[in-house]
Amino acid sequence: MNARQRFANACRGLPVDRPPVWLMRQAGRSLPEYRALREHHEFWELLTTPELAAEVTRQPLRRFEVDAAIIFSDILVIPAALGQKVLFGGGMTLTPPIRGANGIAALKTSGTNGRLEYVAEALKIVREELADEQALLGFAGAPFTVASYMVEGGGSKSYSRLKAMMYREPATYERLLSVVTDATIEYLQLQIECGVDAVQLFDSWAGELSPDDYRKYAQPFVKRIIEQLAPTETPVVYFINGIGNLLEEAKACGPAVLGIDWRVSLEEVRRRLGANTIVQGNLDPGVLYAEPAEIRRRTLAMIDETGGRGHIANLGHGVAPDTPLDGIYAFVEAVQEWNSGGNEKV
Amino acid sequence: MNARQRFANACRGLPVDRPPVWLMRQAGRSLPEYRALREHHEFWELLTTPELAAEVTRQPLRRFEVDAAIIFSDILVIPAALGQKVLFGGGMTLTPPIRGANGIAALKTSGTNGRLEYVAEALKIVREELADEQALLGFAGAPFTVASYMVEGGGSKSYSRLKAMMYREPATYERLLSVVTDATIEYLQLQIECGVDAVQLFDSWAGELSPDDYRKYAQPFVKRIIEQLAPTETPVVYFINGIGNLLEEAKACGPAVLGIDWRVSLEEVRRRLGANTIVQGNLDPGVLYAEPAEIRRRTLAMIDETGGRGHIANLGHGVAPDTPLDGIYAFVEAVQEWNSGGNEKV
Repeated sequence: MNARQRFANACRGLPVDRPPVWLMRQAGRSLPEYRALREHHEFWELLTTPELAAEVTRQPLRRFEVDAAIIFSDILVIPAALGQKVLFGGGMTLTPPIRGANGIAALKTSGTNGRLEYVAEALKIVREELADEQALLGFAGAPFTVASYMVEGGGSKSYSRLKAMMYREPATYERLLSVVTDATIEYLQLQIECGVDAVQLFDSWAGELSPDDYRKYAQPFVKRIIEQLAPTETPVVYFINGIGNLLEEAKACGPAVLGIDWRVSLEEVRRRLGANTIVQGNLDPGVLYAEPAEIRRRTLAMIDETGGRGHIANLGHGVAPDTPLDGIYAFVEAVQEWNSGGNEKV
Repeated sequence: MNARQRFANACRGLPVDRPPVWLMRQAGRSLPEYRALREHHEFWELLTTPELAAEVTRQPLRRFEVDAAIIFSDILVIPAALGQKVLFGGGMTLTPPIRGANGIAALKTSGTNGRLEYVAEALKIVREELADEQALLGFAGAPFTVASYMVEGGGSKSYSRLKAMMYREPATYERLLSVVTDATIEYLQLQIECGVDAVQLFDSWAGELSPDDYRKYAQPFVKRIIEQLAPTETPVVYFINGIGNLLEEAKACGPAVLGIDWRVSLEEVRRRLGANTIVQGNLDPGVLYAEPAEIRRRTLAMIDETGGRGHIANLGHGVAPDTPLDGIYAFVEAVQEWNSGGNEKV
């Protein structure tokens, strides 16, 4: 069973020799070879230049025996394709921020995929290189999360502009989210045409919503994306940071796999959602600062929670930039060592 | 029934005419009169000068008919009393950061209350002014949260230093948390001697821990504080930002009241922990950006979840600095309008 088959089986709850493993943000600042590239290229240049994006995508695969690559990109490629100017460096800014119906009318809603060809090119390069050996993931931000950046014009602590729009101008909010949703569906279809094995939807900020507001302002758009992608039979992994408060709601969106952060145990997820729920996660990225023996112990214990079936081993959030490489090696090796019979319990 | 009695009754699950109301961070940057004071005084100067701290504490009571004041202070007064230098302005820093046993040995662990007299003085001023009319709350940071600042030397995204200490040097971690816990117990006893009606423990970052790690690295210290304060019969409100993943664990600490953030409904809290659980919260502070009518509707619906009994109405997190004053008025007035029979359901 090679890595790609292992990954495909896990997404579908089929038998595997062990859970496949990859790490969110496995490509990036934790790798010295990435930091070396960044000395010569800006972040946005890396991800919009297909050869460079493909190179960064492959960097972690040369170091770690992970089963999947995820395309090196950013969730803000959608706002950029819609015509917002995205700037990184000293915090990120999106200009002009979307503050009403006029802002939405000015977005370039047609032909967005034409402005995302660089991602398609990068995916084709990586797909060819990985051949049939490893899995390749595409991804996009979930609409609520992407819209939060578009409205706030960058990151935010209080989401005051976004929440004001949600509550005071619901029609404007609905229109913006629909625009983002439509562009995201087309974009994920493009990635699927390029041969990805699965796509992940990152809902980094949906965990900031109350369950009621999540059902009203975020869930319908995620559901629509997943429904529209269903004919492709490509598994969708839906990740919410803070999913513990939204488990039933996230499941109701219909993804093949739920991405689980580390604040809720996989055992509790299965208890609440059913034993057949397919999960990805969920070691605390902070555990990678521990000694290798402790990382190993906790990784094995985490897999024991699911028995390794219907489980893609991963962190519960992205690798932090200052993570020791030894910690990443220890995590990946522990997953490889795991076997359903012989792990000591903790 | 005056405000102070209403608050005292609510903390004990006794009958009230309506839930008492106050807002976390009701004193501070959302108020123009606070911003005016800040033009002449630094933040740390305000909170360490008893007359000024008392003045800021009273500011929201002049505007809003809240039932309780909370002393204007900061959870970092404990690191300061232990001898760390705390600097605000352009981000906050604590120097030297605690990086091992030597750092802990250098802390001034005895006589911390002598270096917190300014808080006692401010409390006495406010207590006298409020007389028997309104409730007064004291507070402290919970040990895990306070220690995170002490070890990281400020705020953090990944808590890499703290987590490295937890996992690699458990004895050092335990020693630091014990030092913080002991100082916090004495400090809260001092506040209780000054006449506060309740104390709140803010565990702002405990929601970043996995449930297993919470039980091991945060819960024992909170439990110890609450046990030590029990003879005073002063209610402890225990607030975790992200409590939804830690409900049973937080309850097991034994606080009189659980402070609930907005990511979990009060209905779910009572379903999981029992109908008699006394709660504080939990409107999303982001709802204060909505129209007053919508704020009113949501506030009444939030109280209907508990029927108003054993419930201190509050936000699910602190007031954001850019919150419109109209929103705060609408929230407080809605709580005052609530009555157990006559609210339209939503």
